[in-house]
Amino acid sequence: MDVCGIDPGLGTTGYAVIRAGAGSLNIIEAGVLTTNSRTAIDHRLIELADGFREVLRQWEPAVVGVEQLYAHYKHPRTAVQMAHARGVLLETAARTGASIRHFSATHIKRYLTGNGRASKLQIQRAIQTAFNLAALPEPNDVADALAVGVCCARDLADARLEAAV
Amino acid sequence: MDVCGIDPGLGTTGYAVIRAGAGSLNIIEAGVLTTNSRTAIDHRLIELADGFREVLRQWEPAVVGVEQLYAHYKHPRTAVQMAHARGVLLETAARTGASIRHFSATHIKRYLTGNGRASKLQIQRAIQTAFNLAALPEPNDVADALAVGVCCARDLADARLEAAV
Repeated sequence: MDVCGIDPGLGTTGYAVIRAGAGSLNIIEAGVLTTNSRTAIDHRLIELADGFREVLRQWEPAVVGVEQLYAHYKHPRTAVQMAHARGVLLETAARTGASIRHFSATHIKRYLTGNGRASKLQIQRAIQTAFNLAALPEPNDVADALAVGVCCARDLADARLEAAV
Repeated sequence: MDVCGIDPGLGTTGYAVIRAGAGSLNIIEAGVLTTNSRTAIDHRLIELADGFREVLRQWEPAVVGVEQLYAHYKHPRTAVQMAHARGVLLETAARTGASIRHFSATHIKRYLTGNGRASKLQIQRAIQTAFNLAALPEPNDVADALAVGVCCARDLADARLEAAV
């Protein structure tokens, strides 16, 4: 069963489609959806939604995972821009019938490294190991999408295990 | 020609469809779209988009007006929630072919009252006068949607005047 992790952004959204088999985890497709900052925001949102719908149409993930909203933002204006993208992506995903899972940043870090305050590099290394990658995952948007995708896949596996018991 | 002003919010979005004739300004429909905070955010966004699409389908406004993003937010988390709704509403509007206009809060206040720092009450009174309403416009979400709608209608009238010269 496939899951899709996303790292929403108006300019760059990272996504990662992950296939979780019995004891295996594979990246099916990972990449970024980008929009041009000189384009009007409403048209950027359409481009983003259309691009993401195409990814969802192709792989039909059962679950879409996204990082939970924070309580505090260091850069509120950037966060507000991101949230436009996040809203459109969540709506687009929900319309495909995918279930949406939200994970806190701390949960993601703890799950991947055992430490809820892990650095970006530690997260990248954990992902590199999980997928047996030759290099650290880049860019950051894809690394973050992979991180949330791994949590999503594990949650799904745990749920199936419980259902089987 | 009709315009539609909106005051986006995840829980409550105000909207106001305004018909601008030669020297006249009429409220065609104004109201709120609401979603339940106990519903998952992705489903709230679908409800909001569907509700707004229905308003747009019914009145087919040529222009949708919205308040510009601020540079600073007092309550970043609330602003981030609002922005999810704003993103979905802008995408929905743009898909109908409506053009989207953004107005700063200062522009709206100055246009309605001559004072860029007008109070909420002053804005409500200005709207009451503009539409010859028996009472102050309520709730706030509708009053704010009417305020941005009036700016939208005036901009459109100015543009037509210029085109006619």
